[in-house]
Formats: sequence, C-alpha cells, structure tokens
Amino acid sequence: MGHPPRRTAEELDAADPLAWARDRFVVTDPDLVYLDGNSLGRLPAATPDFVDAVVRNQWGTGLVRTWHTWIDWAASLGDRLAEHVLGARPGEVVLSDSTSVNLYKLAAAVLAATPDRRTIVVDAGDFPTDRYIVQGLAAERGLTVRALASDIDTGLSLNSVAAAVDDDVALVVLSHASYRSGALNDMAAVNSLARKAGAVVLWDLSHTAGVLPVHLNASGADLAIGCTYKYLNSGPGAPAFLYARADLHPALRQPIWGWFGQRDQFRMGPDYDPAGGIGRFLVGTPPVLSLAAVDPALSVIEEAGVARIRDKSVRLGEFVLDLVPPGMRVASPVASDRRGGHVTLEHPDAWRICRALAGAGVICDYREPDRLRVGPAPLYTRFVDVWDAMDRLRDLLASRSYEQLDDAPGRVT
Amino acid sequence: MGHPPRRTAEELDAADPLAWARDRFVVTDPDLVYLDGNSLGRLPAATPDFVDAVVRNQWGTGLVRTWHTWIDWAASLGDRLAEHVLGARPGEVVLSDSTSVNLYKLAAAVLAATPDRRTIVVDAGDFPTDRYIVQGLAAERGLTVRALASDIDTGLSLNSVAAAVDDDVALVVLSHASYRSGALNDMAAVNSLARKAGAVVLWDLSHTAGVLPVHLNASGADLAIGCTYKYLNSGPGAPAFLYARADLHPALRQPIWGWFGQRDQFRMGPDYDPAGGIGRFLVGTPPVLSLAAVDPALSVIEEAGVARIRDKSVRLGEFVLDLVPPGMRVASPVASDRRGGHVTLEHPDAWRICRALAGAGVICDYREPDRLRVGPAPLYTRFVDVWDAMDRLRDLLASRSYEQLDDAPGRVT
Repeated sequence: MGHPPRRTAEELDAADPLAWARDRFVVTDPDLVYLDGNSLGRLPAATPDFVDAVVRNQWGTGLVRTWHTWIDWAASLGDRLAEHVLGARPGEVVLSDSTSVNLYKLAAAVLAATPDRRTIVVDAGDFPTDRYIVQGLAAERGLTVRALASDIDTGLSLNSVAAAVDDDVALVVLSHASYRSGALNDMAAVNSLARKAGAVVLWDLSHTAGVLPVHLNASGADLAIGCTYKYLNSGPGAPAFLYARADLHPALRQPIWGWFGQRDQFRMGPDYDPAGGIGRFLVGTPPVLSLAAVDPALSVIEEAGVARIRDKSVRLGEFVLDLVPPGMRVASPVASDRRGGHVTLEHPDAWRICRALAGAGVICDYREPDRLRVGPAPLYTRFVDVWDAMDRLRDLLASRSYEQLDDAPGRVT
Repeated sequence: MGHPPRRTAEELDAADPLAWARDRFVVTDPDLVYLDGNSLGRLPAATPDFVDAVVRNQWGTGLVRTWHTWIDWAASLGDRLAEHVLGARPGEVVLSDSTSVNLYKLAAAVLAATPDRRTIVVDAGDFPTDRYIVQGLAAERGLTVRALASDIDTGLSLNSVAAAVDDDVALVVLSHASYRSGALNDMAAVNSLARKAGAVVLWDLSHTAGVLPVHLNASGADLAIGCTYKYLNSGPGAPAFLYARADLHPALRQPIWGWFGQRDQFRMGPDYDPAGGIGRFLVGTPPVLSLAAVDPALSVIEEAGVARIRDKSVRLGEFVLDLVPPGMRVASPVASDRRGGHVTLEHPDAWRICRALAGAGVICDYREPDRLRVGPAPLYTRFVDVWDAMDRLRDLLASRSYEQLDDAPGRVT
C-alpha cells in the first residue's frame, strides 16, 4: 500500500486489543517515541511499588528472615516464564546470572558431556557475547569453532546449518532472532537436523522471549538462555534465564560449582553434589532487587498473552515497513514470519541519524556497521508512535540535519 | 570482668563515636535485636529512595539512554570500595556477578596462567561455595586439591599453610575470616610465604569487607573477591566485588569471555579481545537495581571509616564474650586480633536455640553442625542490643524453652 496517513494509525490503535496494556507502563514523556524496547523494555507501572516493598518491607523489616521467600524466586519465576513465555514445563527454566554466564555454563556442560566431538557451530553474525563465550570455551579446550557466514539482512540459511552440523559437532549455538536484522532461525528445523547428527542446540532467546511465542518443548529444543530486560521489561541487567529440557539434567554438569547449585545447600557438606533438577545450573546468591522486578513485568505479559503480543508485533512491523522513508533501506526480512520484533534499516549515516532522531524525540538504536534498529514493543508501542517516528525520520532525512552531528563512535550504542 | 549490668552497655553507647550511624539505617521494630549483619546487613535509610529514583527516573524516564551512566557503575563503585574499604588502588576493584562466579573467574585465570603447577590449596573448613568452586575447577583440569584441616573454633594455622604451599601449588584460596568462627587468617604472612613459593593467593573477603580495614595492597595481596550484602549493607544478593592487583592484569585471562569484558564493547568486533584493565574480569550486563544499592550503603561506611568501625567491632565482640551465658561455649578465637566481626557460640542444641532466640526477638544465625553466630554490626548494633540479646539467651537457656521446638533441619539457615 502507499504511504498511509496518520489517521490509519489512529484507527489501528482504536481497534488494538492490546491498547489497554500501555497503561500498565510508566510513560512520563508523552512526546517521546520509544522504539528501543528490544534493548531495554519500559518500566511497568507496578514495578516501582513492587521493588520498593521488597526493599522496605522484605529487606528493611524482614531482614535475613525473608530468605525463606527469596530462595524460591529463581525457580518460581522460571516456572512462570516456562509456562507463559517459553513453552516449557515446570522445573525446566530458572532465573540466574547473566545471559553470558548462562551460555557459558550450559555450553560447557554440553562440551563436558560429549568430549569426543570437537566442533562448535555458531553464526558468525551472532551477538558478540554469544560468539565470544564460545571462542573462550573452544580456546581453552582446543576445539574448533565453525562460524557460519550469515546474511546481515536475512540471517542464516537452514542449508548452511544443515551442511555444518556433522558428527563432530557437539554444540550448535544460535540466536532465535538475529540482534541486527531480527531474522528468525527455524527452531524446530534446526533442532531436528541437529538431533539427527547427535548435536545439542543451545538457543539464545534474548530477542524473542516476550515478543513472540517460543515453543521450546514443541520444537524439541535442548537448551536455551536469554535476558529478561528487553521484551520482558524486567529492568536494566535483570537476571537472565536458562532452560534445560528435563531429560537432559542428569547428564549435564555445569562447571561453576557454586553453593546455590548444591543439593541441600544449607547442610554445607564437604563435597559438591549438584541438585537433581534445574537447580544444578544455579551458582551464587541471586541479586534479589533486580530479580524482584521480573515478577510484575511477567504479570503484564501473562495477562496479554504472547500470541496476542506476536499478532500486534507483526502488524507493527508491517506498519514500519509501510512507512520506511526514502533513503533508508530495509535490512530485515520483509516476510513477517521470518522476522522477530524489530525492523532494521540501513543507511551509511545510521549512527548520526540515530542520534539526530533521539534529538527529535524518537529513541531507536544503532548497531554496527550502519544499522538503525526500530523496535516497537507491542505492550506499549502504539501505531501512532510508529507513524510519528517514521514521519520524523522522513523529515530528518529530507533536511539532512543529522549531518551537523559529529561522527565519533559512541561508548554505548 | 564479671557479668556487666545493662547500665554498662548504656554507658558504652553514650560514649560511642559511631552512635550516629544507627540513624542511617531503617529500624522498624525497635524491640528486635538484629545480630545477623554478618549474613545480611540492614537496610541503609538512604537506600529506598535511591533505588526508587533509579527505578522511576533512570529507568522509567531515562530509559535506555541511562546506560551512559550505568555503564560506569561497576568500576566507579569498585574504586570507592578500593579506596575506603579494601586498601587497593583505583582500577583494581570492580563489581561483578556473584562471589562464586568471581572466584571461578579469577581462580581459572590463575590456573590457566600457571599450567605447570597442579595443586590448589584450600581450607577444608572454608565456606562451601569456595570449596565447591575449587573442586569443580580441579576436577575439570585433573588438578589436586590440598584441603587443609583447620580448627573449627580457631581456624587455620599459619604453619599448616606454610607446609602446604610448595612449588606445585598454583593457587591458595582462603577466607580472610572463617564463616563459622570468625577466625582471621594473617593475610600478609600468607601472601609472603605464597610469593616465596611462586603461588598466587586469592582471598575471600566476604566476612571482613566493611567490618575491618583490609589492606590488600599493603599486605601484598594478589587477588580477592567478596560479597557486598553482609557488612557492606548493599542488599540481598547485591553484586559481588573482585580485586586483582594491577600488575597481574595482563597475565590473567578469565574464561568467561563475555561482551562486558571486551575492549571497545560496542564495536562488537569479530573476536574477543579483553579490555586492558580490571574490565577484563567483567562478563555480562550487571543487575543495575541491585548494583544501585551499593552506592548509598558505601556512603555510610565512607563517612564512618573502617578503622572506627573495626574499633567498635572489637569492643562489641569483647562485650559478647563478657556476656556469654552458662551453657554456651565460645567457639571463636578469644583474642580480638584473631577474630573478625562475629562471635560464634557452640551448643548441641544450637539450631533450636537459634530459632527460639528469634522467637524472643533476637536474630542470630545457625551454622552446621552446632554453632550460633552472633554478628554485631558496628554501624547499627548498640551495646544494649548485645546486652539484651545475651540476656534473652541466658533466660532461654535457663528455661530450656527451646526444647519444645522440633529439630528438623531448615531449608535456609
């Protein structure tokens, strides 16, 4: 269709079954268009009071006694994530550490369990920490990293994964959605071909958890990790999650033998004896204040339902595509079923455009080398937000006002 | 001296140069005597508003833009810890992960740097996570763990450390103060004998940081880790710290190659290239809400000064010793210069006594097999608190009312 008028956006918002959800978030600057929920989700309206009660009441008044409550959160929040977001069973998901540390633990556990296989397959275009963690594991063990070339716009081809996964491959580490383009990998297909080759697949769900239904069990997924601060809205650096299918627990021993992974932790026995279930993947004391913020954030998602969230996400993404202004090239799959929650646009001056756009009240983000990520979050992004953002982007490109900014690289992008 | 009257405690409080500091903490139940600051420190009065501002303003309004601020906290809080608490230089301390993960990272880095040495020395009576982490590292690498027998009351003898550290020892992992007895290890002496043998020492400061002056540089310490939720009052599961002496940075590469340890992190380059300084020991995105709580907690300690804190800690500990009721045996070093912040008492029924004491409004904690830990925290524990606690303990022992409780082990102690 041609360039839709703002009225179209207003009509889409009026008919939006998730319109109510925006009120579940704090929006202090109504003129700001926030399209970076794929990096840091907005603050849920219930979170400040929830966290404050944890601080004042549970810590301040309950003191150390509240550990009887806190001790269960990593697992109980994991169970909620499993049921409502990840398509997994109770006891298969737990909150713990950072995404990077969880990747390390699970990947190392697989490598220890399959010492005869000497290769790890990764996407050469995957998010840096995924690649770096694997590089470190491989370097220490003398393993080969098979880094598959992927298209920066459309992602990894299933054929290249199929060709790479042979009987020397212990582990395949892939992101469900590419951090740059949002291109989706076919989780079920990869799981199936890896299983035939005897390899284990570890999925990074950071860019899909909370914005589309993930079907870990139904797709035959072995292992997964992901952050909770993007579409899961749990706050900056909120604890990450990890998933391990129940039948894999006995064979997997992760290398960081911390006391939270110990069976009968407070017996404080002489030798490490890992807990029987998902608890064996825990390590140290969880950061309770940050963990607390996962709870109210999940409540909004549970109420909305990830299927409805995905439905709106697809329509928001298509609306972005309808509105891409001249001069920006779409650098994401155009087919919605091949794309996660964000749409990426390419421009040689993307870094300056991103900052100029922020000056015009539109927060997107920049990714090397020349990408502008547009990340509508269905729970709080309206169609008019997308329309206004693309309108301001259009003006900015027409005026070339961004050329007045310097081009020095940013420390944080 | 004989059993001092409560008036003595009141006089000590009246003369206490740190008496002002109690008002810097939230005390909602004035009848409760909290002697478990060695496990979870009290809530500083400034913390709720500080954390709330981070949640509402920095996250809620600033959104992803606040990462320009948050990105520096791990290092800037580390520098404050270095200067005011740990006796280290700027750039030698950083906040990161949990104590367990930090121990793993630093220990693994040492083992990788000294592959010809095949032994790790630990205290067989050290805190579980320290022993377990080392067991895991040793198991994976086929190394020997030399677990030194230590006295449950008085700790490890320097002679046994000296005898154990030979030229096959890569690493010595010790706690500065024993978690059970509070017995102190002589940091400078251990560092010196280890250096002569070519071994690296990694100190766990969890039970000393914030309650006595730690002199990492002056004692010639190589590496250290510790938590911030005990005497550092930063809240349940607050991020841990790690210290690495500056000259050791180039040789140490930790095994978890996460993107926060990468030089020029947001360039997102193809290969892991660790940051030049202390940043190379970082891994993933820090839990910002939990990290935030370190700031106001440190401010109180900076104002009080750890030397004054230690002075009061010693006097509080001696006051506990003066008041130990009949039936409890002192299970800590009686010499104050050999003891950290807490005093441990032994009784065959310590578990039931601990819970009965909680029912009488005195929170201590229990440690296997039969220990009651009494942990006065100088910033908020008054001498009358100690007096009242010991008085209630005396009554409880005289009445044997604790015998009415069941003796089933607790999940959390």
